[in-house]
Amino acid sequence: MNRSSTRDSLNTIGEFGLIRSLKRQWPASSPGIVTGIGDDAAILKARQGQQLLISTDVLIEGVHFDLDYQTPKDLGWRAGVANLSDIAAMGGTPLYLLVSMAIPVRVPPRHVRELYRGIQAACHPFNVELIGGDTSSSPSQIFLSLTIVGSVRANRALTRNNAEIGDRIYVTGTLGDANAGLHILETRSISHRRSRPSAVETFLIRRHLRPTPRIHVGQLLVDRKLAHAAIDLSDGLSSDVGHVCDESRVGAEIRATALPLSSQLCAFAKRDKTDPMTVALQGGEDYELLFTAPANRHQKVLHVSEQTKVPITCIGEIKPKTFGRQLVLPSGRKHKLPNESFRHFNSR
Amino acid sequence: MNRSSTRDSLNTIGEFGLIRSLKRQWPASSPGIVTGIGDDAAILKARQGQQLLISTDVLIEGVHFDLDYQTPKDLGWRAGVANLSDIAAMGGTPLYLLVSMAIPVRVPPRHVRELYRGIQAACHPFNVELIGGDTSSSPSQIFLSLTIVGSVRANRALTRNNAEIGDRIYVTGTLGDANAGLHILETRSISHRRSRPSAVETFLIRRHLRPTPRIHVGQLLVDRKLAHAAIDLSDGLSSDVGHVCDESRVGAEIRATALPLSSQLCAFAKRDKTDPMTVALQGGEDYELLFTAPANRHQKVLHVSEQTKVPITCIGEIKPKTFGRQLVLPSGRKHKLPNESFRHFNSR
Repeated sequence: MNRSSTRDSLNTIGEFGLIRSLKRQWPASSPGIVTGIGDDAAILKARQGQQLLISTDVLIEGVHFDLDYQTPKDLGWRAGVANLSDIAAMGGTPLYLLVSMAIPVRVPPRHVRELYRGIQAACHPFNVELIGGDTSSSPSQIFLSLTIVGSVRANRALTRNNAEIGDRIYVTGTLGDANAGLHILETRSISHRRSRPSAVETFLIRRHLRPTPRIHVGQLLVDRKLAHAAIDLSDGLSSDVGHVCDESRVGAEIRATALPLSSQLCAFAKRDKTDPMTVALQGGEDYELLFTAPANRHQKVLHVSEQTKVPITCIGEIKPKTFGRQLVLPSGRKHKLPNESFRHFNSR
Repeated sequence: MNRSSTRDSLNTIGEFGLIRSLKRQWPASSPGIVTGIGDDAAILKARQGQQLLISTDVLIEGVHFDLDYQTPKDLGWRAGVANLSDIAAMGGTPLYLLVSMAIPVRVPPRHVRELYRGIQAACHPFNVELIGGDTSSSPSQIFLSLTIVGSVRANRALTRNNAEIGDRIYVTGTLGDANAGLHILETRSISHRRSRPSAVETFLIRRHLRPTPRIHVGQLLVDRKLAHAAIDLSDGLSSDVGHVCDESRVGAEIRATALPLSSQLCAFAKRDKTDPMTVALQGGEDYELLFTAPANRHQKVLHVSEQTKVPITCIGEIKPKTFGRQLVLPSGRKHKLPNESFRHFNSR
């Protein structure tokens, strides 16, 4: 918390009260932190042989989230994971977090504390420490801005621009669940949560509200020099494959039949009369990893999957740029991979 | 720009269009940057013998700024300086910036570009490079969140918690100008800019809109081991002295007659029938530095002032904690230093 800009709101806690309570709630004890929260800037020691990773994400009420159908703690978790996932996509180790937020007066202080607890809960398994941030009142929406700092062995980070022709394309986990979960939440919200969600719905909702950052997979890919390029699936597979192709100046072939779909997504899509493959291709915010690796490392990639207990599936291959980005349909017909991601369900 | 979250707005530029145009407008070429804008995270090399500084600030429309009386470029400048000033207060060198913003549809793309240009203009003298950020639409207000990364020689950063009893208390520049400038802007805005501002008003307005970060002063204080503690004056002198006292567990005596006041502030205050000393004590956002240094380094401190051409004034002394925080009035009477800063002028 480097500046006091809270003059109108957060009065019940007070910004400095909030900083004190955060210092207690989330103490920073890493030897890499010289000075944490409470000065003009945090002071950090660099680690020998490591490079620093830094990434930032904003989340706006009414654009990225709606507290009608998620708790402040859920929101905090997802905000934390969005940042952790960026470090996972570089194959790095998350270390420190800065949390800025602007909060309207209508939001009770306990919701603010719950929001922090959600962020902290997402970060806890990785010992990420809070080193700064800023708080402010907000005239209308909640605004969240998180900045994460991580490290990676020098010159070993997984970037988007290093995919090579002939690489296999892999993804972790299953795709499209988060998008279906969001759709369920929005629909249930509209009809005033008329009934308890089914087991299928509960699974998909949880995949939206509590995604898992694939930190360990990313780290093993770096440690064992397995991958050429990586990205996290935040925009949707189709769009994120496009980013890797753009940056690496290559093409890609994706096999529709290879896309890893959860049985829950298939059951839900059947009931909803929609195509689960399309949801998997275009649904965003899965926070799974997509990476490319040479074919001769396939066994080693599978070993990472066994060791981390995270499914890893080969879904296609990197092709020359002139090939473009193609989707092989179940019929064998080829189709251009849509360039832009969008929300598959359009309930709002 | 690490994630695409712009789905509704910024359509005219498009987020990826904005990233491309930023890469052109503000290219990153420092040898410390391995990967800048455009991947999941920026990759940075650590510098030998240096520690990292990191700080973040939020600026919300309707709370911290109002585009009725400042241009997007002014806003960008002030946002840049708020961050640069945090690095100055640590005695560090600013290196990299991450810029996140949420923009409502009503804001024309050229205003977004101007905003970036203002940030860039403030950073230009210090060769600060843009390494990331995030953009989003916003339902109503403009929301800005900047994160700055800097470096400082290992174990030499100026913190708030190191002031010693007997230290002299110094400030750079003149105090209260920015607060008076804001008051003029708000008043003029209400009365529809009825007339051209006078020379006095123009000076004070400029001190609000275009503050100067005291980077060079902070660096010299570190290089020459002159200061014990430092903070930037963002909340107001009275409040910021309090932060140093809290963190260092000391008291302070401030001499009212020693406060450096610009002739313009005195002229304006006379006309406005207000007390310029009170404005200097309580007005925020001057972005001057306050630091403490042992009395035997006084000549060397004055030499920093000569060399940087920035006025540096001794305004008091660090006392034992039991002394409290006292203000010596021109009459010689002592008064408790008010604990909280507030906007001296209450026009809104």
